[in-house]
Amino acid sequence: MGSLNDIGVAAGINILSALGFLLAFAVLRIQPINDRVYFPKWYLKGTRSSPRHIGAALSKFVNADMSTYIRFLKWMPAALKMPEPELIEHAGLDSAVYVRIYLIGLKIFVPIAMLAFAVLVPVNWTSDTLESQNSLSYDQIDKLSISNLGKGSKRFWAHIVMAYVFTFWTFYVLYHEYKVITTLRLRFLANQNRRPDQFTVLVRNIPEDSDETVSEHVQHFFAVNHRDHYLSHQVVYNANALASLVQEKKGLQNWLVYYENQQAKNPEKNPTIKTGLWGLWGKKVDAIEYYRTTIEELSKQEDEEREKVLSDPSAIMPAAFVSFRTQWGAAVCAQTQQTSNPTVWLTEWAPEPRDVYWPNLAIPFVSLAVRRLIMTIALFFLTFFFMIPIALVQSLANLDDIERVLPFLKPIIERNSIKSIIQGFLPGIALKLFLIILPTILMTMSKIEGHISLSGLDRRTASKYFLFLFVNVFLGSVIAGTAFQQLNTFINQPANKIPETVGESVPMKATFFITYIMVDGWSGVAVEVLRLKPLVMFHIKNTFLVRTEQDREQAMDPGSLDFGTNEPRIQLYFLLGLVYAAVAPILLPFIIVFFSLSYLVYRHQIINVYTQQYESGAQFWPDVHRRIITALIVSQILLLGLLSTQEAESSTVALLPLPVLTIWFHYVCKGRFEPAYIKFPLQEAMVKDTLQRANDPTLNLREYLRHAYVHPVFHGGDMYELVAMDEEEKDPLLVATKRRSRMNTPVDSRLNSSSGTNEGEFSRLRP
Amino acid sequence: MGSLNDIGVAAGINILSALGFLLAFAVLRIQPINDRVYFPKWYLKGTRSSPRHIGAALSKFVNADMSTYIRFLKWMPAALKMPEPELIEHAGLDSAVYVRIYLIGLKIFVPIAMLAFAVLVPVNWTSDTLESQNSLSYDQIDKLSISNLGKGSKRFWAHIVMAYVFTFWTFYVLYHEYKVITTLRLRFLANQNRRPDQFTVLVRNIPEDSDETVSEHVQHFFAVNHRDHYLSHQVVYNANALASLVQEKKGLQNWLVYYENQQAKNPEKNPTIKTGLWGLWGKKVDAIEYYRTTIEELSKQEDEEREKVLSDPSAIMPAAFVSFRTQWGAAVCAQTQQTSNPTVWLTEWAPEPRDVYWPNLAIPFVSLAVRRLIMTIALFFLTFFFMIPIALVQSLANLDDIERVLPFLKPIIERNSIKSIIQGFLPGIALKLFLIILPTILMTMSKIEGHISLSGLDRRTASKYFLFLFVNVFLGSVIAGTAFQQLNTFINQPANKIPETVGESVPMKATFFITYIMVDGWSGVAVEVLRLKPLVMFHIKNTFLVRTEQDREQAMDPGSLDFGTNEPRIQLYFLLGLVYAAVAPILLPFIIVFFSLSYLVYRHQIINVYTQQYESGAQFWPDVHRRIITALIVSQILLLGLLSTQEAESSTVALLPLPVLTIWFHYVCKGRFEPAYIKFPLQEAMVKDTLQRANDPTLNLREYLRHAYVHPVFHGGDMYELVAMDEEEKDPLLVATKRRSRMNTPVDSRLNSSSGTNEGEFSRLRP
Repeated sequence: MGSLNDIGVAAGINILSALGFLLAFAVLRIQPINDRVYFPKWYLKGTRSSPRHIGAALSKFVNADMSTYIRFLKWMPAALKMPEPELIEHAGLDSAVYVRIYLIGLKIFVPIAMLAFAVLVPVNWTSDTLESQNSLSYDQIDKLSISNLGKGSKRFWAHIVMAYVFTFWTFYVLYHEYKVITTLRLRFLANQNRRPDQFTVLVRNIPEDSDETVSEHVQHFFAVNHRDHYLSHQVVYNANALASLVQEKKGLQNWLVYYENQQAKNPEKNPTIKTGLWGLWGKKVDAIEYYRTTIEELSKQEDEEREKVLSDPSAIMPAAFVSFRTQWGAAVCAQTQQTSNPTVWLTEWAPEPRDVYWPNLAIPFVSLAVRRLIMTIALFFLTFFFMIPIALVQSLANLDDIERVLPFLKPIIERNSIKSIIQGFLPGIALKLFLIILPTILMTMSKIEGHISLSGLDRRTASKYFLFLFVNVFLGSVIAGTAFQQLNTFINQPANKIPETVGESVPMKATFFITYIMVDGWSGVAVEVLRLKPLVMFHIKNTFLVRTEQDREQAMDPGSLDFGTNEPRIQLYFLLGLVYAAVAPILLPFIIVFFSLSYLVYRHQIINVYTQQYESGAQFWPDVHRRIITALIVSQILLLGLLSTQEAESSTVALLPLPVLTIWFHYVCKGRFEPAYIKFPLQEAMVKDTLQRANDPTLNLREYLRHAYVHPVFHGGDMYELVAMDEEEKDPLLVATKRRSRMNTPVDSRLNSSSGTNEGEFSRLRP
Repeated sequence: MGSLNDIGVAAGINILSALGFLLAFAVLRIQPINDRVYFPKWYLKGTRSSPRHIGAALSKFVNADMSTYIRFLKWMPAALKMPEPELIEHAGLDSAVYVRIYLIGLKIFVPIAMLAFAVLVPVNWTSDTLESQNSLSYDQIDKLSISNLGKGSKRFWAHIVMAYVFTFWTFYVLYHEYKVITTLRLRFLANQNRRPDQFTVLVRNIPEDSDETVSEHVQHFFAVNHRDHYLSHQVVYNANALASLVQEKKGLQNWLVYYENQQAKNPEKNPTIKTGLWGLWGKKVDAIEYYRTTIEELSKQEDEEREKVLSDPSAIMPAAFVSFRTQWGAAVCAQTQQTSNPTVWLTEWAPEPRDVYWPNLAIPFVSLAVRRLIMTIALFFLTFFFMIPIALVQSLANLDDIERVLPFLKPIIERNSIKSIIQGFLPGIALKLFLIILPTILMTMSKIEGHISLSGLDRRTASKYFLFLFVNVFLGSVIAGTAFQQLNTFINQPANKIPETVGESVPMKATFFITYIMVDGWSGVAVEVLRLKPLVMFHIKNTFLVRTEQDREQAMDPGSLDFGTNEPRIQLYFLLGLVYAAVAPILLPFIIVFFSLSYLVYRHQIINVYTQQYESGAQFWPDVHRRIITALIVSQILLLGLLSTQEAESSTVALLPLPVLTIWFHYVCKGRFEPAYIKFPLQEAMVKDTLQRANDPTLNLREYLRHAYVHPVFHGGDMYELVAMDEEEKDPLLVATKRRSRMNTPVDSRLNSSSGTNEGEFSRLRP
């Protein structure tokens, strides 16, 4: 451990830089010109349409009201003021529960820290092992940690008892929170207005039928097997090519607007561009003309592609969104197995329409098992061997190679000061770059695995990222060495030696982790609130692209909570806190500061900034819970390993029941609460159905659901209105089966009246 | 390894003893007097009412027809003759699939053995490591095994390739079998006649309601939440005390019959007994008189208890069997979650009435989690530390102690010959006794865990027993030492050293396991077919208890397949076969003989002897499959460990993908087939409902289901007819709710007509 002084200096620097960021934020946020960067959510909600301080021309950009500068920290109490129910209403349950994670950090660690400082710190401090071992240079801060206890000391019992107390306290908080959040979720689902996903089930891997189209097959199957409940369905098109065309067109349109603005400012000069790679080479052409024709061409391609998708039967995926008359019917269908072959007619709750990750709906189901196998292996290699390609890049990018390839740089590189900078800088940059793109890599891996909702992708990415952080940040820092070396150490060590090795070095790394918490935690959160990147991007867009208020609306980038990368980082702090609670409690205040600051900042952000990409109703909670449990078990095993090196055998045995109890606690919680995140109870469905029938007896549910699950590229395509032509009247009431033999599906007479119209036929789509 | 000679001698002895048993069986089975011991199933089926050979008085007991002695082995082809569909019809799917396990053993190991003898044996044989190392005494049999290859030999590649071939062949067989058995199961379920469990769901942990009885609460809940499907229900009574009274009475009645028979043979002498402990001490009384009065008293107690159970609300458990109008309704209810609290109103398919394990229905649901935790810990200690109490018993039961406690035995014990016998015998007997009662211990543990069906209990017991056999028989024999010592070795060894340690000693244990297979497998199976215990018991009962044909019927003890103990034993042979396939193929023929012989014997037994305790429709198959997969992974890891000690590093790496592939294969199979063993697909239910409606439109399902799930102690109690009194007419059509506030359960008007009669009221029970 370092000295108290070292930590004091580091803390000072980090506190100053964090305060600097917060100060910058406090000043920037009250400038009207930045209003759309720091309060985009209110604009999107429509409650704010222009900065609040309207007056002189100057005050449109700069806040001249000095009184607001004095109260520059007032955003903090403001962030706390909104009560939770209102927060849920305003920002959605996902966001509200996300900030609760920080609150749980406080709930767990504040009492633990108080206890630890009341009991463990005196116990450690009054011991005198380090003093008596004069040969060792020790420091005050080490006297606070478990290192100050001699081998075989009776005082370890204090740590063991505290480990039990900490564990049970964590159990209590976790159980209580799981219960509260489950209640919030159920209440949220119950209070929600009518949403299409409540009535809809996603059916995947519909078997091929030689006589019927997918749409007919779906209709017949559900009309028979859910005869009283089936309402309509929507087949899924493989519109990935179309979607990428639409995407491309959008990018070109941005450029067109940019050049049109240029010309508007400078009417006499026609902007030109080069048509080659990145506008650097090639023929010079008139920019506006060029983009107009390209966009026109793309529009034509898009039309053709759209036509092709709608007419080509092979563009219809063996998947469909099936809607039911009642939520009860949908709940039943989502939870049951449809046929004797459990790999076809797979039903699950449809995600919210905006939560659907459309490209993955086109993945054939059979390839999913293979994809997941490959991604699991890839994740293993990524986690344990990621240093290999980076080391390769680092060795390639050394100075001699650069000099050989670009000899003209030689005189610059050879200068000593620059050389040392580059040499210190280059190896790090490859690693830094990798860490920056890591979340993207992990997200891509999750996408390859084939999850069909954005929320699911986020959850899977978070799991992967946590594994990476655990192995490479936590274990990597404790044992010092690449993950691959660790792996090698681990498999070459006896099973009971691993916790010992890790546990033994845990107390020595306290200073390192304190610094880590301050740099990554404190300053990182302060940077988050400043929103540097959106700030710069908004002003660039505002200058070059914005013509109308609508454009300005689009130039705002409120962003959203990035669950996949943020949540695993929080989990790292839970892990550190739990591991060090009994070993070196001095770490806890730093973690508590992190949790408080983050809670403030993220509460502010979800109120004022972030929009929701989707609303999953806190479906991620079981994952969060499981990871805290994992951290708890890791902390117990490491304490076990640490104590077993201290010649305190009997005390080690006393710790053995802890992990068993924790695993058991996990299963109890899982059994008690997890189904609420996976299934939808029939009683709730029945209540909602009954209420709905009473409140809105005339609702045309079929009409309501008609376009809910249409691929977004088909939304708003005005040109398709003509195809629609209201074919409703022409529809035969009975869709006759084209199947020659229908051994197993008795035809029901109700088929005619209740489910006769074929919703799946896309030709009647009216956007 | 021992020499070929040693094995030859052992094989000779075991073949002779097995043949002896088989011969004894062949002779005994054709004696008419044993007909009910060896063909009880046919008697129970009613197709046979007396031995086939009727003639002279003598020939009622002894078969004098010499021609049948000549064809004494004809039971073997006869056992094979019955085709599988007929076998399923005759003995049930469980039994038919059980004998298929042996067939799978043959399917896996016959081709593997042929390949191994064609490829690996020559490769091993033509190597000359053992010959060149003259210092070692080696034997011909070692030359056939992998030991004959030198370190770093290139020939290991043959074993690696073969390991892949064996694995893929096992995959093929397993996948194919899973598919076939799943098809059999689905066809079996589809062809089954109407059974109560198809319409019935077991609901557990019904929450308390202050205003309503359990029965009313159940009725209201399902009438609201499954309004179109709910039919009736049957509450569960805690009749465990009553059941034990009934059991006790039955035992006393047997004694009464015994003494009555005694008197009938010896009319002048009244049999007397002593009333004290075990009839050894106490007052001498007239036996018949004594048993008559005791039975009368018991009957009175029984009546009181029955009255109490029926009238006492606290005897009603918060569980009920809920029946539905359609199988579709039952399938929906069994697969869905009922309320937002997932720990109440738990629904699952009801087991068959005869499969229900009634005592466990009375276990409060909250205690289940604790019970399972405790039993898991207990199983761990039982598996790894079972030697400790046995060693304790052994040390207590040494000769000196016996001499001290029972000094009069001293002169006998002191004689040298006897002393040595006792000393050799006593330590073993404690272990042997433990192993005999082990299945009972494990079954008791499963019962404590609270499973509610006999089939579930059997499955859980099998899992536990397999763990025990794996650790104590397989690992224990390979590493030699108690399980506790092994555990110690394991946790003190590097993770990658464990497979090496075990793998290294695997080839050396081939001879031991060959002997084990012959003793436990060959002779064990031959003893099974002889049915020594039922044979003796039948003749005792026949002599002392049987008066009428009906008594004789009851004296038969056909027994049933004991899945819980037999299946794990088979799995041990799978494990041995897979482990030794690549290491010492010489073991395979012995395993093939075991599988063939067992297949014959068990097929004969399920045709002629065993009755079914229950029919679960091969629900155990996923467990069987999983254990073979486990054996496969163990074999791969051990081969990996073995090769890594042979300085063949690159070849070791080549084996690494095998376990990964196997785990993946397991998940593919699980996803593909396992749901068929847990859920009941809606399509099948709908088909069956439709067929049923067409075939039997007038069926009164309510009447059919009325007494299906009544606790067996209430069956046949004639005295309760009077309570019944056909209250049907008096029933109010509407069971008014007694609840004061009914926030969440809208009253449905259909409640009145469709589910008005309260089936749960036991007062109307007419046996």
